[in-house]
Amino acid sequence: MAADRTSGDEIGEPASRKAAGERDEWNTNSGRGGDVSEAVVMGAGSWGTALAKVLADAGGDVTMWARRDELARVVDTEHENPDYLPGIALPESIRATHDPEAALRDAGLVVLAVPSQTLRANLDDWCSLIPEDATILSLAKGIETGTLMRMTEVVAGTTGADPRRVAVLSGPNLAREIALGQPAATVVGCTDHDRARLVQKQLATGYFRPYTTDDVVGCEIGGACKNVIALACGMAVGVGLGENTVASIITRGLAEIIRLGVACGAKPATFSGLAGIGDLVATCTSPLSRNRSFGERLGRGGSLDTAQAATHGQVAEGVKSSGSIRELAARHGVEMPLTDAVDRVCHEGLAVQEAIEQLLGRSTKPEYRHDW
Amino acid sequence: MAADRTSGDEIGEPASRKAAGERDEWNTNSGRGGDVSEAVVMGAGSWGTALAKVLADAGGDVTMWARRDELARVVDTEHENPDYLPGIALPESIRATHDPEAALRDAGLVVLAVPSQTLRANLDDWCSLIPEDATILSLAKGIETGTLMRMTEVVAGTTGADPRRVAVLSGPNLAREIALGQPAATVVGCTDHDRARLVQKQLATGYFRPYTTDDVVGCEIGGACKNVIALACGMAVGVGLGENTVASIITRGLAEIIRLGVACGAKPATFSGLAGIGDLVATCTSPLSRNRSFGERLGRGGSLDTAQAATHGQVAEGVKSSGSIRELAARHGVEMPLTDAVDRVCHEGLAVQEAIEQLLGRSTKPEYRHDW
Repeated sequence: MAADRTSGDEIGEPASRKAAGERDEWNTNSGRGGDVSEAVVMGAGSWGTALAKVLADAGGDVTMWARRDELARVVDTEHENPDYLPGIALPESIRATHDPEAALRDAGLVVLAVPSQTLRANLDDWCSLIPEDATILSLAKGIETGTLMRMTEVVAGTTGADPRRVAVLSGPNLAREIALGQPAATVVGCTDHDRARLVQKQLATGYFRPYTTDDVVGCEIGGACKNVIALACGMAVGVGLGENTVASIITRGLAEIIRLGVACGAKPATFSGLAGIGDLVATCTSPLSRNRSFGERLGRGGSLDTAQAATHGQVAEGVKSSGSIRELAARHGVEMPLTDAVDRVCHEGLAVQEAIEQLLGRSTKPEYRHDW
Repeated sequence: MAADRTSGDEIGEPASRKAAGERDEWNTNSGRGGDVSEAVVMGAGSWGTALAKVLADAGGDVTMWARRDELARVVDTEHENPDYLPGIALPESIRATHDPEAALRDAGLVVLAVPSQTLRANLDDWCSLIPEDATILSLAKGIETGTLMRMTEVVAGTTGADPRRVAVLSGPNLAREIALGQPAATVVGCTDHDRARLVQKQLATGYFRPYTTDDVVGCEIGGACKNVIALACGMAVGVGLGENTVASIITRGLAEIIRLGVACGAKPATFSGLAGIGDLVATCTSPLSRNRSFGERLGRGGSLDTAQAATHGQVAEGVKSSGSIRELAARHGVEMPLTDAVDRVCHEGLAVQEAIEQLLGRSTKPEYRHDW
């Protein structure tokens, strides 16, 4: 659900596209915090804001950075983010500023909550401000266009940080549900296990349950690719297909994600977990998912332009990622028929119905070749 | 979607619980049949009937057996199954009878479309009638109570058939969608690859796409366990939890299914496929899934009795399977916390909310231990 915006510097859906009626019974808030250092969340979209709340609920000392001074001031004084998480009271202990230098000064944990395609530009501004030992946690999900780099590669490359200091968070994490204290699980990926454990501790609350993994690559490939598969699911629903088809697309989508992930050095088991299937299922089956909704509009015959107009001028993340993921797959010699089809629908004028017919027309064969 | 009935001898939901409004645009029916022998479908529930239609659409010579003479006559003469697939025209070439001897006489492929807990009794009646070289394809999904046997074990044990003659079909296959010709994929599991290929050919149509695997155990464990996980998803939705929770339950559910499967000799990759995640996702996310709906009723505070009353006196398959799967897990020393919780809610009076709290209270740890 993160990194779904075309522009701007916050991750998450603006308030106007939020669903109503969520419930809050499970907000136990049994913070387990302890000796945690200062956490700074760079970005005040829905996911950054929700994660700031988690960090504070877990007992942490939390500062948020917002691009707009006005939003920073509202969050700081009203303890609410009316643009991205309206109606949700944030812990009063959370401070907010639009000054990156002030925000980052004493950071032990720097959470990057900005969209994938603007991350590099943001880090160019911030890299000299990030304390030397800080853990850098990426929430961004995408593959950088042009360079085809994963987000933690962009982080390490721009900041010069040892990759062991760079972590990633991924899982079935719809921001608003988490902000409401509904139980959710997630994965902290870091090649330094002790650092992963520390982040896990900083994020563990009664309602938010982090697991750890050292498979950073797997978490990032899963997070980037699922948006494209959600577009494919939406397209199928848009043309009137049913739940067997959606489940099959999710399954075949996961297979191609695994192929790419393994080629990039990920562990297959990661894709059976929260950062793989978990995130994929939430994104592909939720009617709230922007990528799925965008795909539905295309499936009902809408053009990219009309679909974009219907989503407040924003293009779904998967539309942008499909090209760079397809390029990455080509570089590794990996077949990704669903991603190919989505990219061709979005950027080469292929009709959705034709794309589906082509996918169904692939030759029948054993379900798993054992070459991954 | 199969084997969801408490009693009787047909698999699938009676018409009264069908949703309206499915569409049929994708019914291409481009049969690819060729030199296929006679196929006999034993059982005239929704899944057996849909599969008979697939076999006929693929060019096969198909006979259906129905327990009730009346239903057999209607199918044979009206080319419709008004009890289980009302409104769907069946190919006129499909014959139907309630005489098992007549049905089975020249069978090259025997499809067992009866519920898991009555399969043994049915086979005791039929085993002397099944031709010696026939392939026996099981649609039943469950673990036999008492013996803890998988369905193909029951088949081989009662008929004396070489296990290489026994196959299983599993995947995200909501019967009505398939009967409407909507595209779906499935897996044919058989330890004899040539036989799997033959069945694949007998089932391949423009809308139904069978893959093959030799992992019979994985297909059967996946098929049996997903109903229990769907109950857990329903319970979570019933108490008001959201899509993060459902996606997490699906993910953690898959992890425990994999643990059990691997302990029983299955291949982990099977669970990343259509018979694993595919079937699990369809069953857990479809509001039409009986197990999920049953769980929702329990989650909203209903008792087993009231939930059963609301489903025409039928208990969801997962309610029955939870006990035998839990026993099987104990026999193999495998932890299945979700299945335990479902079984305790269904059979030991544990409150749903308490079950969820207990599950969330498990100690945080690395997502995957590498002991499977």
